[in-house]
Amino acid sequence: MRPSKRAADEMRAVTLERGVSKHAEGSCLVKFGDTHVLCTASLEERVPPWLRGQNRGWVTAEYGMLPRATGDRMRREASVGKQSGRTLEIQRLIGRSLRAVVDLKALGERQISVDCDVIQADGGTRTAAITGAWVALNDCIAWMKARDMISAPVLVDHVAAISCGIYEDTPVLDLDYAEDSEAETDANFVMTGSGGIVEVQATAEGKPFSEDEFQALLGLARKGVSRLVDLQKMSIL
Amino acid sequence: MRPSKRAADEMRAVTLERGVSKHAEGSCLVKFGDTHVLCTASLEERVPPWLRGQNRGWVTAEYGMLPRATGDRMRREASVGKQSGRTLEIQRLIGRSLRAVVDLKALGERQISVDCDVIQADGGTRTAAITGAWVALNDCIAWMKARDMISAPVLVDHVAAISCGIYEDTPVLDLDYAEDSEAETDANFVMTGSGGIVEVQATAEGKPFSEDEFQALLGLARKGVSRLVDLQKMSIL
Amino acid sequence: MRPSKRAADEMRAVTLERGVSKHAEGSCLVKFGDTHVLCTASLEERVPPWLRGQNRGWVTAEYGMLPRATGDRMRREASVGKQSGRTLEIQRLIGRSLRAVVDLKALGERQISVDCDVIQADGGTRTAAITGAWVALNDCIAWMKARDMISAPVLVDHVAAISCGIYEDTPVLDLDYAEDSEAETDANFVMTGSGGIVEVQATAEGKPFSEDEFQALLGLARKGVSRLVDLQKMSIL
Amino acid sequence: MRPSKRAADEMRAVTLERGVSKHAEGSCLVKFGDTHVLCTASLEERVPPWLRGQNRGWVTAEYGMLPRATGDRMRREASVGKQSGRTLEIQRLIGRSLRAVVDLKALGERQISVDCDVIQADGGTRTAAITGAWVALNDCIAWMKARDMISAPVLVDHVAAISCGIYEDTPVLDLDYAEDSEAETDANFVMTGSGGIVEVQATAEGKPFSEDEFQALLGLARKGVSRLVDLQKMSIL
Amino acid sequence: MRPSKRAADEMRAVTLERGVSKHAEGSCLVKFGDTHVLCTASLEERVPPWLRGQNRGWVTAEYGMLPRATGDRMRREASVGKQSGRTLEIQRLIGRSLRAVVDLKALGERQISVDCDVIQADGGTRTAAITGAWVALNDCIAWMKARDMISAPVLVDHVAAISCGIYEDTPVLDLDYAEDSEAETDANFVMTGSGGIVEVQATAEGKPFSEDEFQALLGLARKGVSRLVDLQKMSIL
Amino acid sequence: MRPSKRAADEMRAVTLERGVSKHAEGSCLVKFGDTHVLCTASLEERVPPWLRGQNRGWVTAEYGMLPRATGDRMRREASVGKQSGRTLEIQRLIGRSLRAVVDLKALGERQISVDCDVIQADGGTRTAAITGAWVALNDCIAWMKARDMISAPVLVDHVAAISCGIYEDTPVLDLDYAEDSEAETDANFVMTGSGGIVEVQATAEGKPFSEDEFQALLGLARKGVSRLVDLQKMSIL
Repeated sequence: MRPSKRAADEMRAVTLERGVSKHAEGSCLVKFGDTHVLCTASLEERVPPWLRGQNRGWVTAEYGMLPRATGDRMRREASVGKQSGRTLEIQRLIGRSLRAVVDLKALGERQISVDCDVIQADGGTRTAAITGAWVALNDCIAWMKARDMISAPVLVDHVAAISCGIYEDTPVLDLDYAEDSEAETDANFVMTGSGGIVEVQATAEGKPFSEDEFQALLGLARKGVSRLVDLQKMSIL
Repeated sequence: MRPSKRAADEMRAVTLERGVSKHAEGSCLVKFGDTHVLCTASLEERVPPWLRGQNRGWVTAEYGMLPRATGDRMRREASVGKQSGRTLEIQRLIGRSLRAVVDLKALGERQISVDCDVIQADGGTRTAAITGAWVALNDCIAWMKARDMISAPVLVDHVAAISCGIYEDTPVLDLDYAEDSEAETDANFVMTGSGGIVEVQATAEGKPFSEDEFQALLGLARKGVSRLVDLQKMSIL
Repeated sequence: MRPSKRAADEMRAVTLERGVSKHAEGSCLVKFGDTHVLCTASLEERVPPWLRGQNRGWVTAEYGMLPRATGDRMRREASVGKQSGRTLEIQRLIGRSLRAVVDLKALGERQISVDCDVIQADGGTRTAAITGAWVALNDCIAWMKARDMISAPVLVDHVAAISCGIYEDTPVLDLDYAEDSEAETDANFVMTGSGGIVEVQATAEGKPFSEDEFQALLGLARKGVSRLVDLQKMSIL
Repeated sequence: MRPSKRAADEMRAVTLERGVSKHAEGSCLVKFGDTHVLCTASLEERVPPWLRGQNRGWVTAEYGMLPRATGDRMRREASVGKQSGRTLEIQRLIGRSLRAVVDLKALGERQISVDCDVIQADGGTRTAAITGAWVALNDCIAWMKARDMISAPVLVDHVAAISCGIYEDTPVLDLDYAEDSEAETDANFVMTGSGGIVEVQATAEGKPFSEDEFQALLGLARKGVSRLVDLQKMSIL
Repeated sequence: MRPSKRAADEMRAVTLERGVSKHAEGSCLVKFGDTHVLCTASLEERVPPWLRGQNRGWVTAEYGMLPRATGDRMRREASVGKQSGRTLEIQRLIGRSLRAVVDLKALGERQISVDCDVIQADGGTRTAAITGAWVALNDCIAWMKARDMISAPVLVDHVAAISCGIYEDTPVLDLDYAEDSEAETDANFVMTGSGGIVEVQATAEGKPFSEDEFQALLGLARKGVSRLVDLQKMSIL
Repeated sequence: MRPSKRAADEMRAVTLERGVSKHAEGSCLVKFGDTHVLCTASLEERVPPWLRGQNRGWVTAEYGMLPRATGDRMRREASVGKQSGRTLEIQRLIGRSLRAVVDLKALGERQISVDCDVIQADGGTRTAAITGAWVALNDCIAWMKARDMISAPVLVDHVAAISCGIYEDTPVLDLDYAEDSEAETDANFVMTGSGGIVEVQATAEGKPFSEDEFQALLGLARKGVSRLVDLQKMSIL
């Protein structure tokens, strides 16, 4: 049995709360159980230097954790003077995941920066961040549409993400921190609303995993993402 | 008339919500109108190197702003690679203010780190931070008392802070961002529950101010802090 | 047809040259075609602070690229003052991959640092690095065994890695740079000699990929890693 | 009685020596007793990026301490790799204080950088720096006037600064290091030649201070600044 | 007798292997015995900002060491976050030495960056680097000539370098690491093909050296550089 | 004729003023004409980690320039966040030069840090720094002797330095800034009181120099250092 007492294919309660920021063009506070991530989308009328004059836009992401989002206080990255490898890895993943469903030409020469800040962490912060970032991005694009800044559709599909893992030899969905730290394998799947796979990251923490185990994780993830996409759809009604 | 339509001596709605963090020993989400600051107090069983072996504790503070807490997105300090002068100045102020009401001997050889992270900014973030930090610190100390970690009182008084300024030649209390950017003088007062002054910072933005104007600001601040201390008392009942 | 004229399941010529460093306890110059990576394993009689006194060792990796390893000269990370997110991500991957086949208890309280420096790059540097790093690590451990520093086996299996991708709708094995920059999907697989999976990283560069496509990549990778493990075995005879 | 044997309202011997730098457009070596600060004003025909094209100039300040300006050698900030929070706080204060008496429009699109480097420290370095910086700035502007670079007055008033504190329950003027480290309250006042207040910074080091005590400090500071402005006037005759 | 058993005026075996990089416009792997340095010359169609619009080019150099190039593993400078003083000193020396034989006007508004990366170190890395860098630079310029990018000769002379030292009171040529760490005096000489001196760096490690000793070192160096220039000439036939 | 109208072998007026710092154990303000360097020697009862427990001391040096020591204001290294290659090179040179005349065993397990800060620059700052640093160091050691902290002689000889150069084909002594920027060759010589050579650094700025020219520079330097050592002797009477 899982520490969380959830069934193997049972996700935590997920909520997506829009419009939580007075200033951002789009925002979403996403909760996967006790994991809370604030996602804001900020529109800027400029693109990175290497993209100038190409008539295309850019979507990027930054990720951070408040120092006491975790059980033990972590050192503030701004005070340490650099972002950790983990932080850089996660924000690159979020950016790639969002760009997989954005038509950068339709966006025009503009950049949208999505900030994902973990207010409270209990496992699965990167997958919650991707799921919530899509909602913030969607609202930012709606904001632009309302001002006639874009004509063609910019967001061409949903994208959401969920973690899976092998806990005491059983494949389980949506690991919380207690489960994650005990899991033998930890995997993150990013998928689109139409069922395409955008990113797979699977890591054996202790012993290697088999192809069969991997297939079981993929099956769980498909179920989870499908449920998350439904929640995204309801949230933007 | 103020942009906020408030009377000259009228503060914004202030709320102090405790217990907002699953992990921290003490926490408080403080709101001064649209300024929202999350304060967490983290207990660590160690002190800075220069304090070791002296049988005394330490209270320190760190301050940060989410990149889109403000009207325009600001660069993330962790990504820039250093904290700005403004950030360092504010976190030093918060730390000094809290230590002014803490008996460091009674705390024992431990450190409490108070993180003040601005979720949304609309002027007065440093004064809101100090006011909320006291509540988080108080809960952290209650947490220690409940575990018999301390015997003598550690927190010897309340401390709270408020900004004042001269807006169109009129001294006004608790400036929001619109008022702050137009104010001729900007002042922050940190005071204790028993009426002592802990810190005064007054700055002429444009033309210098007179002694009379300063006295008017001090009078307003006294009123404001007294109200904030009442709110702190109600919040910890 | 692939730019490299190779068959879809054909790897580049792979060589593993041992003993290339006068100083290192183990070393290997690995070549996957025009991708050349120098791997050295350095033994140190100390472990990271967080591991002290636990009677276990550690294996870590660092990755770097010479500035002109690539078609255009890249800025030297030492001169920029920090390692890029890509560098940090790759060296974390190499370290995890090696630790998956190391018995850290049998190693004793020591650290082996494996440096993987790309002398020349033509795609697939991280997979070449993992494959060569295993050989360097194996020689380092042989060096220790020859000095009676360890008794139980430290390296419990082989580990090797290969990239795959979808190029013009066809799944292909071992992408060189020209193929990689055109591929729709880019995946890296790390597997053991006994067929276990250690790490999967698959990324859709343009459009999402399907589950079937992913299975095809996995099949190719299995073939490739099996060949690489054979080459490792021959190299250490 | 004060350690310095001075009366409560007695300042240290103050000297302002002009023209001490062969290269700078304006310079002043200011001494408040054993506190010696070298102030140089450097004219540059450019403004910060955010001010370009607005037909206004800028005055900024930087502050530093030689490593052995103090009783114990401090680490060199250039070698540490960053300026401390204290340094940033002080140089921001000096810059604001000078700009309070400068007509930035009359300056034209140019920047004057005032460097304040502490050659020897014995308390009150920031107030000495502001007082000497005004003299350096005045000479820099005279240098410009002599070359017909400006027509309208740029410097519209004097500005000077002094510290006060409460030492053994007595308000005293101009603290040296020995007094400062024992003082219960430490305050810095920046005022203009015409009596306006530019900046007040008052900090309770131990116990909070009362409004009456604050008024006493303000009275002392007024006296001290008035004397410093007289000395500035004499120095530029 | 020297640890290397070489005669006092005997250099190590020197080889200069050209065309070792698939990507660089010019490259050379230089070996002075067990000291191996990879030199690549990269052409860029831009000059540093301070040189723009002056119709002249620039030649610069960067130097690095792989972490396990040495007997003990050194920390990677990219991971430390800065280049050491030694590294900066050496790369400045290499750049100056090359520029001494380059006609920057004839180069046109372009920059050539020469990277010298020490693959394996056994003393004399900076002198090997200069000697090999000249060959890489020469090939880069030949590459440009073949594309009619330049007309006048850019490289006006050879430049090469050698170390000398006083080992057990005897002046010796081309110190390896074992000799260098025991030498009382360590000197590096950079000279041109026509016998001019470009740079002299002589340092007493323990006791000062005499003028006679210095003359002996200079004589040895002249011999050594003359031999190196011959080898350069043969390598580019 | 030299811009300075000095004869080819004529130095600028040199003064060595001792005891200029209230706090440092030894200090000297050295002037070579308009080049002014403040040297302080600070005693610390600890050695660098790599020297602990070896019963020997250490002498190290740091070098800095005030931003407006030069004709154009330079950026403050503390604000840039790192010391330039030039700064690191110079402070390593000063440290080596001083250690060449110190008996580190006789010093005991202590470190003396000599800070050389250029108050005003007009060429030759590194040679002035070495010359003045010796005086500061000598006073620091006298301070220790007066407190019976050392018994054997610590400073075993004088050390001083001077620059030479080839200006319009003529070898000249002690270049000021105007001469230095026009010189074809620039050389620095560090020598002891007994005539030994500690360090030679000679650089061709434009065309290479000949052996004869080098000998001429060496002859001039010998003369200059001999005069500087006389001045050191007079200064410490």
